[in-house]
Amino acid sequence: MKIESVDFFYLAMPQVTIAADGSQDALVVRVRAGEYEGWGECEAAPLPTIAAFVCPMSHGACRPVKEAVLGARIDGPNDIRAIARKVAYESMDLLQAPHCWSGIEMALWDLLGRARGVPAWSLLGWQQAFQKTPYASVLFGADAQETLRRARNIRSKGFRAVKFGWAPFGASVDADADQVAAVAEGMGPDAILLIDAGQIFGDDVDAAASRLPAMEKAGVMLFEEPFSGHAYRAYGELAKRSSRVRMAGGEAAHNRHMAEHLIDYGSVGFVQIDCGRIGGLAPAYDVARYADARGVTYINHTFTSNLALSASLQPYAGLQEHRLCEYPTDLQPLAAELTETRIVPDENGQISVPDAPGLGVTLDPAALETYRVDVEIRVNGDLIFRPPTL
Amino acid sequence: MKIESVDFFYLAMPQVTIAADGSQDALVVRVRAGEYEGWGECEAAPLPTIAAFVCPMSHGACRPVKEAVLGARIDGPNDIRAIARKVAYESMDLLQAPHCWSGIEMALWDLLGRARGVPAWSLLGWQQAFQKTPYASVLFGADAQETLRRARNIRSKGFRAVKFGWAPFGASVDADADQVAAVAEGMGPDAILLIDAGQIFGDDVDAAASRLPAMEKAGVMLFEEPFSGHAYRAYGELAKRSSRVRMAGGEAAHNRHMAEHLIDYGSVGFVQIDCGRIGGLAPAYDVARYADARGVTYINHTFTSNLALSASLQPYAGLQEHRLCEYPTDLQPLAAELTETRIVPDENGQISVPDAPGLGVTLDPAALETYRVDVEIRVNGDLIFRPPTL
Repeated sequence: MKIESVDFFYLAMPQVTIAADGSQDALVVRVRAGEYEGWGECEAAPLPTIAAFVCPMSHGACRPVKEAVLGARIDGPNDIRAIARKVAYESMDLLQAPHCWSGIEMALWDLLGRARGVPAWSLLGWQQAFQKTPYASVLFGADAQETLRRARNIRSKGFRAVKFGWAPFGASVDADADQVAAVAEGMGPDAILLIDAGQIFGDDVDAAASRLPAMEKAGVMLFEEPFSGHAYRAYGELAKRSSRVRMAGGEAAHNRHMAEHLIDYGSVGFVQIDCGRIGGLAPAYDVARYADARGVTYINHTFTSNLALSASLQPYAGLQEHRLCEYPTDLQPLAAELTETRIVPDENGQISVPDAPGLGVTLDPAALETYRVDVEIRVNGDLIFRPPTL
Repeated sequence: MKIESVDFFYLAMPQVTIAADGSQDALVVRVRAGEYEGWGECEAAPLPTIAAFVCPMSHGACRPVKEAVLGARIDGPNDIRAIARKVAYESMDLLQAPHCWSGIEMALWDLLGRARGVPAWSLLGWQQAFQKTPYASVLFGADAQETLRRARNIRSKGFRAVKFGWAPFGASVDADADQVAAVAEGMGPDAILLIDAGQIFGDDVDAAASRLPAMEKAGVMLFEEPFSGHAYRAYGELAKRSSRVRMAGGEAAHNRHMAEHLIDYGSVGFVQIDCGRIGGLAPAYDVARYADARGVTYINHTFTSNLALSASLQPYAGLQEHRLCEYPTDLQPLAAELTETRIVPDENGQISVPDAPGLGVTLDPAALETYRVDVEIRVNGDLIFRPPTL
């Protein structure tokens, strides 16, 4: 088969706020080849990502992503990896390219799985998909009281594990300690607690380290993204200063190397990969195996739709010991309505990786229409992008 | 002063080819504040970069670059660094943002220098600007004979140092050895020889190492970008396998951390920074000092206009021992015509960092008109970008 078309559907809520809530818009990708189609989702700013696909060429190492994709052969997993190498080389100077390719790559696994009638995790190389323990992934309340209320609510829904993150965390050592204590109190005994700093400390190791005592006291397991995604040395220094809390990061990785460096130089205990950014399922699968071989736990990073959630589970579906799974619980309507398929915890609070062909998720066409953002891009009078039709 | 406007001028040659020639298009930035204006240039794919400035917000950590820039105070160098931190944090999930911010940051130093009547290198913190020794930066010929001809031509123009790069280098060990020998023969004795692999070996250390003997024999000083810009470990391993040729890289760095990691983990002997990608002059200046303190030589990376060339010289203007300077000799007409100011070697073959205010370069408005690419972007019917007027 040859890749015949790649279409980007840009969706957004009517109002987008400065909350760190990645489900307020979406860039969904449809790929068609032969009689088949597959769907993926970029975790990316939609307009620059669309531009990365359709833009005019700047030179041989700064070509639009479409050049490596349209018309390429897609008969098996090795073809996906071959196109990935071509994108990496021919679009090396187009910084946005990995975020653009990620959604396309995801759609190609979906398409190939549908063509062969097997789930994507099987095509990746796993013999079996193990259940995962979802942790509710939510934002801190504006104050400790609000966070306490949220934590109690999450526990009452049956979640034993939770991640609280982002502002106002980072405001002050005392306020952050109160927030962390509220999480612990609200979740009660035997809970698994994760704290996400959302890169607030830049590369200031002392500032991040001053938050460790409150986290050690509350029994926090993991401290996510204290620093910017590239500041590996800061991660490594903080890891040395922590006794029980382990460092986590990786969502910013837009290639396999970045995730490996975070493990090797950043000494993280957990590596968290977003398939919508790292280049899709194949590099995420490579990172999962790399992490497993080094005693580092792999966790998906997902804060959008159940399509992205399914994609994010495939790369480590076969790693039984890597049990935790990020599970967004407060999706905006567009992300919730995007898929007819819903991945929900069973009576034991566990979720299963879909075993239907491809990513195993059926989209709801109505959502693609309801939340559509109309984009038109013209270059020298030529219309090079407009919204695709369903 | 407050930043009142940021305008992007997208220029391109009528025909853009797959040659690795970054001067085939350009994205020039004009910033206005108070009575002043400054000019910069992004080394980036123009359309995605424009989109990174004007796109709708996705969430609080994925905002368009304009949000941190327009209306911001710009009274001194610390204001530029403050805006940079805001862009890095609020646009952390917008991958293209650093390439967009780079041209704006450059224009802000130009503007501030003009407002104060001092060159940008002085604002950065240097007491004095030392002359640099330009090396001619050219592409390999299609075969060794053509490369020999080019090398002889460059030597006849008075250049003692040359860098040859990109395809067909990487084709085979023997063909590459012939190419390297042709460079050495054409340049004659006492030449400084640099070879640029253009990332052709991905992260394949053995493949890159197989090219070392021919380079050692030819007396090559520096082996640039054998690997992808993120593959620090591969750089480090190759460095261990080389006796005299030293590794070089850094042009892909889109933040200070990447350049520092290439030094710390990649063991490069030369770090080559493009101000149009790393976030402008301030992070490049930081990297220059970081390199100097660690015995690593800083070199500018520039393959576009003399505006970008001037910007690229500012960060290490005050480092007398860091002598080499990349100097593109075969610019496309758009890049050559863009500036009235021309930075040319003196009778001793040396070039001087401009000492006129700001970046010290005057643009030719005619080039902005002649090579203009008309872009229009509409979102939900609103025209969010069209070419600015002069």
